[in-house]
Amino acid sequence: MSKKVRLGIIGFGTQGSMYANFIENGMVPNMEIGAICDIDLAKREEAHVAYPSIPFYKNYIEMLKSENVDAIITAVPHYLHPEMGIEALKRDIHALVEKPAGVYTKQVKELNEFAASKPNLTFAIMFNQRNNPLYKRLKEIVESGEIGKIRRTNWIITTWWRPQPYYDQSEWRATWGGEGGGVLVNQAPHQLDLWQWICGIPETVYAKVSYGFKRDIVVEDEVTAIVDYGDGATGTFVTATHDLVGTDRFEILADQGKIVVENSQTAVVTRLKKPEQEISETIGMDGVKKLFMGQLDVNDLYEQETIEFDSVWGEQHAGVLVNFAANILDGTPLIAPGSDGINGVRLANAIHLSSWTKKEVNLKDLDEDLYLEKLNERIKEEGKFETRN
Amino acid sequence: MSKKVRLGIIGFGTQGSMYANFIENGMVPNMEIGAICDIDLAKREEAHVAYPSIPFYKNYIEMLKSENVDAIITAVPHYLHPEMGIEALKRDIHALVEKPAGVYTKQVKELNEFAASKPNLTFAIMFNQRNNPLYKRLKEIVESGEIGKIRRTNWIITTWWRPQPYYDQSEWRATWGGEGGGVLVNQAPHQLDLWQWICGIPETVYAKVSYGFKRDIVVEDEVTAIVDYGDGATGTFVTATHDLVGTDRFEILADQGKIVVENSQTAVVTRLKKPEQEISETIGMDGVKKLFMGQLDVNDLYEQETIEFDSVWGEQHAGVLVNFAANILDGTPLIAPGSDGINGVRLANAIHLSSWTKKEVNLKDLDEDLYLEKLNERIKEEGKFETRN
Repeated sequence: MSKKVRLGIIGFGTQGSMYANFIENGMVPNMEIGAICDIDLAKREEAHVAYPSIPFYKNYIEMLKSENVDAIITAVPHYLHPEMGIEALKRDIHALVEKPAGVYTKQVKELNEFAASKPNLTFAIMFNQRNNPLYKRLKEIVESGEIGKIRRTNWIITTWWRPQPYYDQSEWRATWGGEGGGVLVNQAPHQLDLWQWICGIPETVYAKVSYGFKRDIVVEDEVTAIVDYGDGATGTFVTATHDLVGTDRFEILADQGKIVVENSQTAVVTRLKKPEQEISETIGMDGVKKLFMGQLDVNDLYEQETIEFDSVWGEQHAGVLVNFAANILDGTPLIAPGSDGINGVRLANAIHLSSWTKKEVNLKDLDEDLYLEKLNERIKEEGKFETRN
Repeated sequence: MSKKVRLGIIGFGTQGSMYANFIENGMVPNMEIGAICDIDLAKREEAHVAYPSIPFYKNYIEMLKSENVDAIITAVPHYLHPEMGIEALKRDIHALVEKPAGVYTKQVKELNEFAASKPNLTFAIMFNQRNNPLYKRLKEIVESGEIGKIRRTNWIITTWWRPQPYYDQSEWRATWGGEGGGVLVNQAPHQLDLWQWICGIPETVYAKVSYGFKRDIVVEDEVTAIVDYGDGATGTFVTATHDLVGTDRFEILADQGKIVVENSQTAVVTRLKKPEQEISETIGMDGVKKLFMGQLDVNDLYEQETIEFDSVWGEQHAGVLVNFAANILDGTPLIAPGSDGINGVRLANAIHLSSWTKKEVNLKDLDEDLYLEKLNERIKEEGKFETRN
């Protein structure tokens, strides 16, 4: 293998061409464009103009067979990520799948299982927001144990405003059969991943989901979920595509501290000098009296740090590409191992299933056949695409 | 009747003595202290020192019969509010009940029904936070229709930090039989009221409640609830007493605007120039392209106003007293009619019931007998107080 990983870009739409651009502009020094692939032949012209020397394929299997690529990225509709990942790995080609890893856990499980049978290949997922230095730092803080065990998490992430023409621009968009869902499969997978990456995987979820609430679509544009971590800790997650002045506010309360993130940009980290329960138990009646007289200076009990990072556009995505290539070249640990992709898909599936069955859903033994059955019911009713299996 | 309403204060603890103090200090010009009542005779001494000329009673029925009072306030444990309200009204004495109106809806319904049979008497509840000028203004904004129909509401209100000695200070505190619950009956009733006062009464609730989560108590110190308004709109409500650096953040998203309240002090009100759906439908593909290139200037689409009021301590409580007396004297409309008290109690009961039955609970046909049965099970298990009926 050359010192640079030759990437095969499957899908030359907005994302695929952006990745080509990052590589071309030197933002991914350990990578080069090996080939580009798209079923739309109009894209061949675009690719030829931009990258005249790069081979172009209509059929991705042919590209995989061409020996022009060491690795691929799947910048294609969500349903296709698992099968393309498997086809690549089958041919000893490293796979970076786009988020979400797939639409339903059953297909993602197949991908994960196949990838596990190829431990020498690199399998990763484009969770570019894991590269946001702010979230990286917050994960470190939580993992280090310095703020203790998590008690509660709450994320309102409604900065995903999408107007009607966005949904109308393609037949595929915001359908059950083509896209596989709405905000949970398209916009919010980043937060579904970060939330679980930082705070852990919940045991159960109960959700209220509105389908075509404020947009002329059949899929979800409004979601409110409540999760139970199984140890007394709970969380809420709210997302929507109809909030013009969106909110992005993420709060983590823990035994010895608290984190409040605003706009994925600024985090206020509170570190208590002692565990909260110890403060509670030792404050005495004097403390209680002061509390009620407004004289308790809680500032003595903790320290606060405000964390803020500048983030350059594209840096996060390019960073995932660099990390993926580095893992291939020298075993650098992956920021987003491909097998992590199932967590967000599982939670999204469970949220839908809870909304459809009006029941709390256990994530560990999520009934993936039931989910697929109910998804297929919707695909049939929609009547535009074939059902899945 | 004299020009001033003579108030009988039942319970001369923290609240009762505070009300006496407000009246004494001229903060309630249309009221005077008619009598003070407490079963604890140590309070007689305190009252005598502070208000030597005011009659003191051990038995509130005697005070009601004394002709010294035109009205009463029930600054006593929550369970007693309904029966004391009824006993007063029975004797043509106006009643201002403390919040919450009671512990379970069955007893509050009896109070409301009795009060309804006495339409000439004034029946009100001490929802002092309805007097917070910020919330009054927000209610006006929502009611005026200027931001349109509500889509979503979210309130995290965890500024109710209470350390262990607070709970340990009396046998009554934080018990099922004595207090009737934890944060939902003691601290959060204000927000349970304001939330429904401003945003309307939800149809259903599903909740996760932790009992003795981070305090050595049997009742709830941690609550997360999700409500459904029945028209597609949803909401979440989070409260706790173990968050040392509490959050108070209330967000209302509506068809043509949004309100974000921080710390019950500052509200940012966004008013869209057109309904959000109209903006969505008319923005065109140009708008979508701009959105994705980060060039859409959404500031053109709305105006924002920041609302902030200075609030003087005690003003809110005193204001409820003034309004109560004014309603008695000249029919001034009540800020907090007593019959509104049931809304917060019903929601609190439904939250518990959902947590106990692990089911979504309908508020309209809340099974109040089932609630009382389950409450009594807990009172029995606790073994400190008699069950209720």
